[in-house]
Amino acid sequence: MPASRRPGGRSARVRRAVVTAFIDELAERGFSALSFESVAARAGVHKTTLYRRWGSRENLLLDVALHTAADAVPVPDTGSLVTDLAALAAAVARNLRSKPVEAMLRAVVSEALVHPEVATAAREFWDARFQAAKEIVRRAVARGEVDANVSAGLVIESLIGPLYLRVLVTQQPLDDAFIEELSTLVASAAASGTSPADP
Amino acid sequence: MPASRRPGGRSARVRRAVVTAFIDELAERGFSALSFESVAARAGVHKTTLYRRWGSRENLLLDVALHTAADAVPVPDTGSLVTDLAALAAAVARNLRSKPVEAMLRAVVSEALVHPEVATAAREFWDARFQAAKEIVRRAVARGEVDANVSAGLVIESLIGPLYLRVLVTQQPLDDAFIEELSTLVASAAASGTSPADP
Repeated sequence: MPASRRPGGRSARVRRAVVTAFIDELAERGFSALSFESVAARAGVHKTTLYRRWGSRENLLLDVALHTAADAVPVPDTGSLVTDLAALAAAVARNLRSKPVEAMLRAVVSEALVHPEVATAAREFWDARFQAAKEIVRRAVARGEVDANVSAGLVIESLIGPLYLRVLVTQQPLDDAFIEELSTLVASAAASGTSPADP
Repeated sequence: MPASRRPGGRSARVRRAVVTAFIDELAERGFSALSFESVAARAGVHKTTLYRRWGSRENLLLDVALHTAADAVPVPDTGSLVTDLAALAAAVARNLRSKPVEAMLRAVVSEALVHPEVATAAREFWDARFQAAKEIVRRAVARGEVDANVSAGLVIESLIGPLYLRVLVTQQPLDDAFIEELSTLVASAAASGTSPADP
């Protein structure tokens, strides 16, 4: 991982300028056409600054994606599994409607096949995000709502998967009714105590 | 929809040559760089043949995708919901591992934002595929395994969504253990009788 955020000063200003320039370049030109040169020019910084700080455009993509996701999709803690899942699904849906996020996502999808570094960055991103989101299921286990055998990762994937399927593949809307239906279905599946070992 | 398949003769030979050339072009160069000219040249037919028969490259994409999917992902009828879902998930996973299918899928994902006709073709494709797959849930309702209130479409999306999420987004493998866990979770969610109207 690249250098961490600092709250203020020149370094923070440079970071903000680079992140904004990166997102704009990505949305306008796509990841294939994007380079440290083009991002640096847009941000008004020297390209060696980007090489020194991020090393590669894949690292920059991962860094921007992680910080964007942590800000835009916090992990909810509402006190019940179904409302936590509904809140998470609603935040993911909102995030997927944002143009920069959609541009980052499509970059990953279209480049992961060609650039293994993008696939690696995507895996690191999702490892970190799933670790955070699985906390929802762990808390439901601690409250006695869900059996400890239930795979937390599978529950989160079952919630998130249909949202991404609609946005990326089937081109269907992420409306409130769908988010509610989906969260209810996944929560009831988790609560039914299905575990990998069950028949 | 374009002209339908004919079992033999010149028309069927032309169709096969065009479909093969289209898939090869798509895998090698992507949908953006693909044109009726390039497909026609590769297939050894005149490009007016393609214009006459398919009208647009989006129609050709839809036609190839529908026929590929119908052949590669038949809708199972094994007598129980969980084994039907597992068989469907396994067929989808196998299909997603095929290079031409992956190329078609990535074309849809990367082009749907830029070309509304691709988004429309994707919607038509998925409408047809979901109508077929929902039959699995309807038969489970008829057998009394699942409440009639359960949304068949939601069940299929919950099964398919995590598979596409892994392939396109999180870059995780579609192994047999995952397919079994997922099918069991979705079947138990459907059997728990959750409906959109339920709390």
